Amino acid sequence: MGKRILVIGGVAGGASAAARARRIDESAEIIMFERGPHVSFSNCALPYHLSGMVENSEELVLMSPEKFKKQYNIEARVNSEVIKIKREEKKVVVKDLISGEIYEEAYDKLVLSPGANPILPRSIEGIDSEHVFTVRNVVDIEKLKNYIVKNNIEDIAVVGGGFIGVEVAENLRLAGKNVSLIEAQNQIMSPFDYDMAQIFHKEMLDNGINLILSDAVQKINKDSVELQSGRKVAAKAVVMAIGVVPETTLAKDAGLEIGETGGIKVDHNYLTSDKDIYAVGDAIEVYHRLTHKATRLPLAGPAQRQARAAADHIYNTPHRNNGVIGSSVVQIFEMSGASTGLNEKAAKAAGISYDFVYIIPGDKVGLMPEANPIHFKLIYEYPTGKILGAQAIGKGNVDKRIDVIAAMILMGATLEDLKELELCYAPLFGTAKDVVNHAALVALNILNGKFRQVPVSKVRELVENNAFIIDVREKDEYEEGHLINSINIPLSELRDRLDEIPKDRPVYLHCRSSQRSYNAVMALQNMGYNNVWNISGSYLGICCYEYFQDQVTEREKIVTEYNFN
Amino acid sequence: MGKRILVIGGVAGGASAAARARRIDESAEIIMFERGPHVSFSNCALPYHLSGMVENSEELVLMSPEKFKKQYNIEARVNSEVIKIKREEKKVVVKDLISGEIYEEAYDKLVLSPGANPILPRSIEGIDSEHVFTVRNVVDIEKLKNYIVKNNIEDIAVVGGGFIGVEVAENLRLAGKNVSLIEAQNQIMSPFDYDMAQIFHKEMLDNGINLILSDAVQKINKDSVELQSGRKVAAKAVVMAIGVVPETTLAKDAGLEIGETGGIKVDHNYLTSDKDIYAVGDAIEVYHRLTHKATRLPLAGPAQRQARAAADHIYNTPHRNNGVIGSSVVQIFEMSGASTGLNEKAAKAAGISYDFVYIIPGDKVGLMPEANPIHFKLIYEYPTGKILGAQAIGKGNVDKRIDVIAAMILMGATLEDLKELELCYAPLFGTAKDVVNHAALVALNILNGKFRQVPVSKVRELVENNAFIIDVREKDEYEEGHLINSINIPLSELRDRLDEIPKDRPVYLHCRSSQRSYNAVMALQNMGYNNVWNISGSYLGICCYEYFQDQVTEREKIVTEYNFN
Repeated sequence: MGKRILVIGGVAGGASAAARARRIDESAEIIMFERGPHVSFSNCALPYHLSGMVENSEELVLMSPEKFKKQYNIEARVNSEVIKIKREEKKVVVKDLISGEIYEEAYDKLVLSPGANPILPRSIEGIDSEHVFTVRNVVDIEKLKNYIVKNNIEDIAVVGGGFIGVEVAENLRLAGKNVSLIEAQNQIMSPFDYDMAQIFHKEMLDNGINLILSDAVQKINKDSVELQSGRKVAAKAVVMAIGVVPETTLAKDAGLEIGETGGIKVDHNYLTSDKDIYAVGDAIEVYHRLTHKATRLPLAGPAQRQARAAADHIYNTPHRNNGVIGSSVVQIFEMSGASTGLNEKAAKAAGISYDFVYIIPGDKVGLMPEANPIHFKLIYEYPTGKILGAQAIGKGNVDKRIDVIAAMILMGATLEDLKELELCYAPLFGTAKDVVNHAALVALNILNGKFRQVPVSKVRELVENNAFIIDVREKDEYEEGHLINSINIPLSELRDRLDEIPKDRPVYLHCRSSQRSYNAVMALQNMGYNNVWNISGSYLGICCYEYFQDQVTEREKIVTEYNFN
Repeated sequence: MGKRILVIGGVAGGASAAARARRIDESAEIIMFERGPHVSFSNCALPYHLSGMVENSEELVLMSPEKFKKQYNIEARVNSEVIKIKREEKKVVVKDLISGEIYEEAYDKLVLSPGANPILPRSIEGIDSEHVFTVRNVVDIEKLKNYIVKNNIEDIAVVGGGFIGVEVAENLRLAGKNVSLIEAQNQIMSPFDYDMAQIFHKEMLDNGINLILSDAVQKINKDSVELQSGRKVAAKAVVMAIGVVPETTLAKDAGLEIGETGGIKVDHNYLTSDKDIYAVGDAIEVYHRLTHKATRLPLAGPAQRQARAAADHIYNTPHRNNGVIGSSVVQIFEMSGASTGLNEKAAKAAGISYDFVYIIPGDKVGLMPEANPIHFKLIYEYPTGKILGAQAIGKGNVDKRIDVIAAMILMGATLEDLKELELCYAPLFGTAKDVVNHAALVALNILNGKFRQVPVSKVRELVENNAFIIDVREKDEYEEGHLINSINIPLSELRDRLDEIPKDRPVYLHCRSSQRSYNAVMALQNMGYNNVWNISGSYLGICCYEYFQDQVTEREKIVTEYNFN
């Protein structure tokens, strides 16, 4: 007789651990308990049922208990809640949620993969109303969709601008609903920095989402939500997606150690403080490869790897634990955004010395169809040049650039490595000097003191202080929209118009995407100007950064016309 | 007065070197000589003019001499051929191809970027006919397109199945022409191995290209080409694209050292054997990071990097020379294919001990729109597991997987690293266990002796020798098409039908994409079967591999019906 392995939770982590254990050991007895009616569903695809991209909710369920039994000889017990772990007896107490029956099962090894729960703050009045929903599983998404359809709901508030909130908002909007997205922070999508998030904000607005930032829900009424600011937003259905907390009830009750971040504490092998109990997935805390601190990372990829490692360890197979860096991608209407490693906020919080570049080159050769600007931000350690993270947003292939950076981070690469990286090139796929090479070159120029730059976030201050800003684009480009107070000296006229450029005060240059202004900066420096600054991100970056603020505030415009191409 | 820098060749390498030198030194006098009428055109985009994707050929020209002058203060002399280098006097002799005037220019530093020439074998009768074309520059592509349009040409032969030949054939086909693609080797697209190339062959056939392999052109007639096999192919225009040779005439005449591969020999800094003459781009030979041997790599990305390094060296700025690994990507109708590093052929030729895996997982979550199988082949060093190369072909995002592998190769990564790599995941972009992670896991299983596999190329032999092959797909899948002589035991019935599976002879298993057969192999091994083999690539791989052969040969089918989804 083989080992008796019990698994609590039947989605990403749990199902992976069970399947892996079966592959290693045909003789093991493997039982998986899942509180809900489904095992192994695609939780990341749940929001796409709302728009109909995934038409039938049954498609979201990847495996039935019958299939688990037949294909893997794994017993998957759905509607079965483990209500207690008796560590001394190595038993779990299970409640059959259909029959109400309570029974015990013994284990040799136990794997916890209970996931995380959506946060529902008690402080919000009306949070328990029947028109308040969360999106955690197939039952949830069916409930939400049925409610909307049955009651002909048009006005919906989505609370929380993380992955789930954003994807739910997008898919409801695609279904033609009036959607308000309410986020308490001053930006959505926290893996991105504030400057990059503006592009998402713009995309949300452009697609008719009522985006509300820096405001929180205080009260949920029957047909509206009331915000802290006093504002009232029409909503006959409310989706709460402000975040998740690790499901640690069972673990706590059993006296297993909980980490400082609130996740179940595990060791290198995903063993809890009990040598026969493993824990994986959204419920645990993990080690961050770059900050060297504990963190939580509720993502499917890491959960699968943890599950495999835990199953391997049950059978004495060692594995490598690299810690996590956190790579993710999201689609918001026509924009895709991907990120990996540390952003500025995270680097700052971790006390890591860093610098960054923000460039907006083309994502493929300009004369190819569907060539678009790609907004790319690269964070690196100062002064070592070690790559710490990156964010990319655009209409094209942003994920490939971020995957490359993820690979470079894993391998401890520096800007010098990234600069020399040979990537696939053909005009339909990229440019001969890809975005990531380009970013490394700019960053090295800065590290090596070849030129200096200011971020787009400082441009308003420059304009308001009447700084000397030169727009080196051609005249026709300038006339289609430009910074107020900027002077137009095209790169092509620069050398003939030096007398217009002062040497006794700082000079700031920009073009469309910083390529021409970089050449202009270098030329001026060569000609004895020693207080010249490039505006990182240039006009494209400024437009994106300023656009959103101008849409939602009363302040004066500093850009005559926006141009995002 | 600054340095006097002369540059021979005004496309990728030459233009990059000149622009970089200008950025470093505003006082330099920089003159660029280009034999043709255009500088800085997009040579990689040339074929797309044939289909009209790039409508006007002027779009292909990225910079005019006027713009070079105005923006960079670089003098670009077109229609100007450098006919001699006088090394002792540090001068070049230039011929103005319009006026016929011959004159000299002195240099402090000279950069050679003359490119490479299409091969036109004298041995082919009729090679000099006016309806024989090559595709090297904008003038060439205009000539070809005009000829086709003006003469209403329908039947066109493209000779050579490399990047240019394939892209020209595709674009002509998209323009509605009858295109024959003739390749002397048994496969097109040499960066790919024979097994992978079958997918391209299929795509060519499916799109109505008359693909002819293992046959060479002997004679070009007015309305046909005659092949070595005796076959005659209708063609009123012929495009020769069998390869390029480095343009080394000037360098040879000047007594500069030529490398063993026929390219100009350069050192770490892209200096030729003359300390004042640099050479970059398609004309030089480079060092291969993986084979540790000299090679030639006529690609735009490396050319740009070399140009930058050469300009930097003129100004005493050191750079890093990592050698090359060769990354590239091509689109053939709906299929994209990307590759990096060594393929099997190259590893074999270099005498490197290697093994490989070939897997065909989904490129994104199956229930998302446009989810497709991705054919992925990973080559690694045996027994170290060091990653040597990869090839990916599919309708989706193949380049991102190969870019990731390129990054891993640059950083000296092993399968263990690749397995743990955290990539961006969302259902629209990939799967939680991405293709590249998956390939590493399979490869490690093989390295660690967890299971054994046979390649798709051996399946015919197995079938013909009546090997015991189990198809573990479900019955309905089997009935839609299967290997003849294979036995259908679905994974879901495997454990109940063990009595049908012999223990005294080798047993080969496959499913659709090897995921289920892998589980079946592990289960059987666990139950005491010790001669069990997985068929790498499984049914999808077998279909692609066998399909093309069956289209062009008389041999018996071993697959009842092909299924490519």
